[in-house]
Amino acid sequence: MRLASYKPTKSTNNLDGELIVVSQDGRRAASAASIVPSLREAVERWGELEEPLRKLNQALNAGGDCGGAEGTDLGSAAHAANQVSNSFALEPAKLMAALPRSFLFADGSAFIHHIKLVRKARNAPLPETLLTVPLMYQAESGRFLSPTENIPQRDFAHGTDFEGEVGVITDFVPMGISADEAVKKIRLLVLINDVSLRGLIPEELAQGFGFFVSKPAKAVSPFALTPDELGSSWREGRLHLPLQVRLNGQFFGRANAGEMHFHFGDLIAHAAKTRDLAAGSLIGSGTVSNEDASVGSSCLAEKRTIEQIRDGKPSTPFLRDGDRVEIWMEDSSGRDLFGHIDQVVKAVK
Amino acid sequence: MRLASYKPTKSTNNLDGELIVVSQDGRRAASAASIVPSLREAVERWGELEEPLRKLNQALNAGGDCGGAEGTDLGSAAHAANQVSNSFALEPAKLMAALPRSFLFADGSAFIHHIKLVRKARNAPLPETLLTVPLMYQAESGRFLSPTENIPQRDFAHGTDFEGEVGVITDFVPMGISADEAVKKIRLLVLINDVSLRGLIPEELAQGFGFFVSKPAKAVSPFALTPDELGSSWREGRLHLPLQVRLNGQFFGRANAGEMHFHFGDLIAHAAKTRDLAAGSLIGSGTVSNEDASVGSSCLAEKRTIEQIRDGKPSTPFLRDGDRVEIWMEDSSGRDLFGHIDQVVKAVK
Repeated sequence: MRLASYKPTKSTNNLDGELIVVSQDGRRAASAASIVPSLREAVERWGELEEPLRKLNQALNAGGDCGGAEGTDLGSAAHAANQVSNSFALEPAKLMAALPRSFLFADGSAFIHHIKLVRKARNAPLPETLLTVPLMYQAESGRFLSPTENIPQRDFAHGTDFEGEVGVITDFVPMGISADEAVKKIRLLVLINDVSLRGLIPEELAQGFGFFVSKPAKAVSPFALTPDELGSSWREGRLHLPLQVRLNGQFFGRANAGEMHFHFGDLIAHAAKTRDLAAGSLIGSGTVSNEDASVGSSCLAEKRTIEQIRDGKPSTPFLRDGDRVEIWMEDSSGRDLFGHIDQVVKAVK
Repeated sequence: MRLASYKPTKSTNNLDGELIVVSQDGRRAASAASIVPSLREAVERWGELEEPLRKLNQALNAGGDCGGAEGTDLGSAAHAANQVSNSFALEPAKLMAALPRSFLFADGSAFIHHIKLVRKARNAPLPETLLTVPLMYQAESGRFLSPTENIPQRDFAHGTDFEGEVGVITDFVPMGISADEAVKKIRLLVLINDVSLRGLIPEELAQGFGFFVSKPAKAVSPFALTPDELGSSWREGRLHLPLQVRLNGQFFGRANAGEMHFHFGDLIAHAAKTRDLAAGSLIGSGTVSNEDASVGSSCLAEKRTIEQIRDGKPSTPFLRDGDRVEIWMEDSSGRDLFGHIDQVVKAVK
C-alpha cells in the first residue's frame, strides 16, 4: 500500500494534509477521507484503520482508470469500491510530504562509514561506543518540506548540505522494547532529505547540547510504503536497495541502504530506551553511505572529505542558490517506489 | 485566561485532550468544545479563536457557580453564556498536561548559574559562547506527563532528577525572527518538570549528538496562562516570580524565574534561526537557578554539586521509588497560578 498526503482542498488550516491512497503505477489515487482525514491520524489508529485502507487500495488497483470496481472480487468492500469510483489522476504538485508532520523525528546515524568520514572532516574523534550504541538526535518535525519544495537558505555561509536517508514510521512503541520487537512496530517507510547546515555544526556541537540550528526543516518523499510493498528488499530491519541521488541532473550517489550497521529495530529500541514513542514517530537511518567509493555519496560532506583526503582540499562547494537535489529509490526492476524528492535551493532573507 | 486539558470523556483515541477554561479561583471550569476540541488546535488557530475563548472565560468568571451569565455585560456573548450554564467543578484527577503534546519542545538553558554548576559537577568545560548564544536541545514532546502522573524509572542507576522550568507556548514563528518580535509570539505560559537522567548524560554527551535517552518524558503544569494573567510579573520576556519546589514535602527551592540571562524572545529567536516554528511550540527556560544560595535549587544536580564543593562529595541521592516532587508558582498575593505539578517516582520494568 502506498499512502500520500494531498494539500488541503478547502481553505482550512489543515497542517496534516488529506490522506490519499496511490495506485501501483503512481498515476492514480483515491481519497481516504471517509476512513480517516490524514496519515498522522491513520497511524494513530492503525490497528483499526489498516484494513479499510488496504481494501481501498485493492479496489483502486483493481478498478483501473476511474472505472469503479465492477467485476472485481472485493467481498464486502462495497464502500471501498464507491470511493474508487471517485479516483483521480495524481497531481504531483498537490503532494505534501507523505507524512506532513510528526511528534517525533529521531534521526539515527547507522552508517558507520558516514560517521567516520564526517568526523574526519571536522577533526572530531570517534565515539568509543561507535559500534554498540547508535548515535541519535531529535530533529525538526513540526512541518516537513514537501518533496518538491524549495530548500530555504538564509546564508550561504551556513554550508547547506543534503543528506539522503531512509526513514520508518512507527506505531506506538512502549518504553524498554527490544530491538526484535521494535521491528514489528514499523508501519511505513519513507525517504528523507535531512537538510544540514555544515557551517553551523562545529560551533553548535562545541556547546555540548548537540544539533539544533544546524538541522533545519527536512523534506519527506511523496509516498509512504507499507513494508510488504518492498518484498524481499525489506528484511532484517533494513531496506536493501540503492538510494539514488542526483545533483543538478548529474549522478551523485547510489549507495545501498541495506548496509546499516544498526538496523531500524536497533534504532527504535534505542529511541525508546527511556520513553514511549508516540504513534507516527519517524526514525531516520542517517545518511546512507557505503565503503565502496564507486557508488558515490548521499551528501556533500562525504564527497568533500574524500576530496580533502585525496587532493588536500575539498573542491565541491556546499549548495548554492538554484542547485537542484533529487533523491529516489527504485526496486530491482526499475520501478520507482517512494516518488522523487526533487528540491531546489532558494536564497531567502 | 487559564486553559487546561481534560482527559477525553469518550473512549476515543484523543491524545490532545479536551480544552477547558478554568475560573480565576481554580475551582470551576467550562468546556470549550463548541469552539475548538483541544488546546493544540486552539493555538494553531489562535488569531481566530482567542476572542471566543476570552468571551467564554469572562462568562465563566462572571457567572459564578454554574448560574449562567445573567446580569453580566457580555455583549454578543450569548453563546459563551450558554456554555457557562454547563460549567462544572474542576476535578484535578481529570487534568492532563495543560498542553498534552506538541510538535516541538525546544528547551533552552537560560540560567547561567545552572550551567556553571552542572558542568562543574561533570567536569565539563563551559562553552565559549556561554553569554552570547543560548544552549538549546530538542526534547520529547509526543506526550507530556500529566501534572500528577508518576515519573517512571526503569533503573535507579539512571540517576533520575527533576528540573523545574518555565515554558512558553508560541504561535507560528517565521524563520529569522528578531528577539523583540519573538516575544510577541508568546501566547501562553506553563511550568515544566524536565525529568533528566543524570546517570546517562556523560556517556550520551560524549557521543557528540547531545541529549536523547537522558531526557525522557516531561510533565507540564495543569494550567496554561495567557501573559496578561501574570500582570507586571511578566515583563521583558521573563516571568519575575519564584518557582516553588518541594521534595517529599520539604522545601527545596524558590529561585526567581526572572533571573534568566536570555529572555524568552532570545530563546525563540535562536530556535527559529534556521527554521519556522510550528504554532504550539513549547520553549523551555531551562532549570530555574539563582546565585543566591538561600533560595535553594530547582533540581537535585545543583544541590549535589553544592554539596560536592562544600563537603567533597554529594549527600543528596537522586530520586528513588516513592519520592515526591512538587513544582508550582504563586503570585505576590499567594495565589496559585499554574496549579501544582505533583509527581511520585515509580519503578517500572
